[in-house]
Amino acid sequence: MSELRKNIISRQWVIIATERARRPHQFTREKKVRKELPRYVPNCPFCPGNEAQTPPERFRLSVAGNWRVRVVPNKFPALTEEDKLVSTNIGNKRTISGVGIHEIIIETPDHNGTLALMNNAEVERVIEAYLYRYHCTLADSRVEYVTLFKNHGAAAGTSIEHPHSQIIATPIIPGEIRERLESALQFYDERGQCIFCVTLREEQEEHTRIVDENEQFVAFIPFAALSPFHLWIFPKRHCAAFGSINDAERIALASIMRRVLRKLYDGLGDPDYNFVIRTGPKDQRLRHYHWYVTIVPRVTQTAGFELGSGMSINMALPEESAQFLRGVVVN
Amino acid sequence: MSELRKNIISRQWVIIATERARRPHQFTREKKVRKELPRYVPNCPFCPGNEAQTPPERFRLSVAGNWRVRVVPNKFPALTEEDKLVSTNIGNKRTISGVGIHEIIIETPDHNGTLALMNNAEVERVIEAYLYRYHCTLADSRVEYVTLFKNHGAAAGTSIEHPHSQIIATPIIPGEIRERLESALQFYDERGQCIFCVTLREEQEEHTRIVDENEQFVAFIPFAALSPFHLWIFPKRHCAAFGSINDAERIALASIMRRVLRKLYDGLGDPDYNFVIRTGPKDQRLRHYHWYVTIVPRVTQTAGFELGSGMSINMALPEESAQFLRGVVVN
Repeated sequence: MSELRKNIISRQWVIIATERARRPHQFTREKKVRKELPRYVPNCPFCPGNEAQTPPERFRLSVAGNWRVRVVPNKFPALTEEDKLVSTNIGNKRTISGVGIHEIIIETPDHNGTLALMNNAEVERVIEAYLYRYHCTLADSRVEYVTLFKNHGAAAGTSIEHPHSQIIATPIIPGEIRERLESALQFYDERGQCIFCVTLREEQEEHTRIVDENEQFVAFIPFAALSPFHLWIFPKRHCAAFGSINDAERIALASIMRRVLRKLYDGLGDPDYNFVIRTGPKDQRLRHYHWYVTIVPRVTQTAGFELGSGMSINMALPEESAQFLRGVVVN
Repeated sequence: MSELRKNIISRQWVIIATERARRPHQFTREKKVRKELPRYVPNCPFCPGNEAQTPPERFRLSVAGNWRVRVVPNKFPALTEEDKLVSTNIGNKRTISGVGIHEIIIETPDHNGTLALMNNAEVERVIEAYLYRYHCTLADSRVEYVTLFKNHGAAAGTSIEHPHSQIIATPIIPGEIRERLESALQFYDERGQCIFCVTLREEQEEHTRIVDENEQFVAFIPFAALSPFHLWIFPKRHCAAFGSINDAERIALASIMRRVLRKLYDGLGDPDYNFVIRTGPKDQRLRHYHWYVTIVPRVTQTAGFELGSGMSINMALPEESAQFLRGVVVN
């Protein structure tokens, strides 16, 4: 029978709908879209040779004189850097001017590249670019929070094929992040423990939802996963902000990200996905918050029930999804 | 420039991204999918003649001996009716058995029918079925909340073409609904007014976001609309629960729903959409809560930023979207 499970961090309930469940392999896509793309596309603004088509570059990592990762402002930004922060209140309508930073991390010169198929050094460079721009954007006094994310494939909301991630720095802490901070603080107040550290320990003991692990990180399917193969990657060391990771963690993060994305690529046939680095806010030393990565393969479609209730219906059993991904062998 | 706007009811911020904005007609789809479907599909479980393929019927409205609306249990329900409500807590993992009700409202015998193209009497029958089953499902003592919704088209998450809506009755009040109730209660505590009544009055005075109106209802684009053409239909009379509507309201709701959906159909070319009847919880006489309908055309795709922040990026200006829909003339 079905089961309602509570996400201890977001406090939202998920319906694990076993009556309509599908086996893990039923989510596998036959055609790997990425494989059919050319390595170079003459009119792609992110392909080498077209550097002038992007706004002026802010960061570059090169090897033997050729760039491997570039960071540029988004040409069509959701938020703009030029303006002043103006907050208004008219009647009950509250607005803030659209001040912020919106950057693109071009992950590789190869149009058909993808994190899942890169080597460790290549993924490390991408994480390095994330980290550098995270610090730079957060240094802007108008910025309160930085969201680092990737949209892979059309179902994940990307319109540009060339592999890239994005940074959006907002002048507010988003409501959802504030709710999580409050919920984590309440847990800390009651128990004197970080809710993420406790969750991680429980997952390690139970082991049924673990997908991959290295010295610094654990990747697992959350107990109340929102959707099939929804994944969390938690750092083992308690640390509130992504920006505080050390060198060993940066290298280990690149390695586990690559391995997990490769498991998805091989196991599910290059699914569309989003990932987000969920970091704490500016105050980086909070005892009750813990940064992590969330990955959501877009193998199903959210619908009216999710919209109306905020609850998700997950058609896959988290324990079965984890077992399936554990079984996908990667180097 | 862009603007952040706060949704006063959900308390979430939305980025109205004018830098990447599109004009309303740019969201219009060329091909009306629904028009190309046949009226009758021999192996469709919801088409007339195949009544035995659904679980036993729970409600039927007939005209001249032929059914026009049927309500049946979902053959693959997200929640099941047979089980006992069992709540468990192991470590920090909280579960409730998947008890609840999941029903399908078959809106018409016509496989290619759609609410937008029906006449008033036909839509009224659909609302009648909603109302009847709303009361029946809420009468189950295990049920705490009823979500009534529709998924129209593949991008809105439906896998069955034949026009239908759904009811999911859950053994909990979803977290998102609880948050809205709390936020509305706080507003009521501070101001002695219903936040929805105040919002409605402000919208009527300003008029720039109104799409349609009749004696009982107002349809408008929210000030902080989540996505292009996101719509709210508010009843003018303060009333916490959908189940408390009177006969005049039922008839007026059918009329405004039909007109608004027809505006979307004609103006945007039969877009995929979800709608939800957001009702209050079981206690139907709350002074601080107000039921309403939310309609979300699926003309854009949510992505990593929405996932990571809970904030939306809306690429259309609400005032422009409203003006566009006001200009679509329907009978």
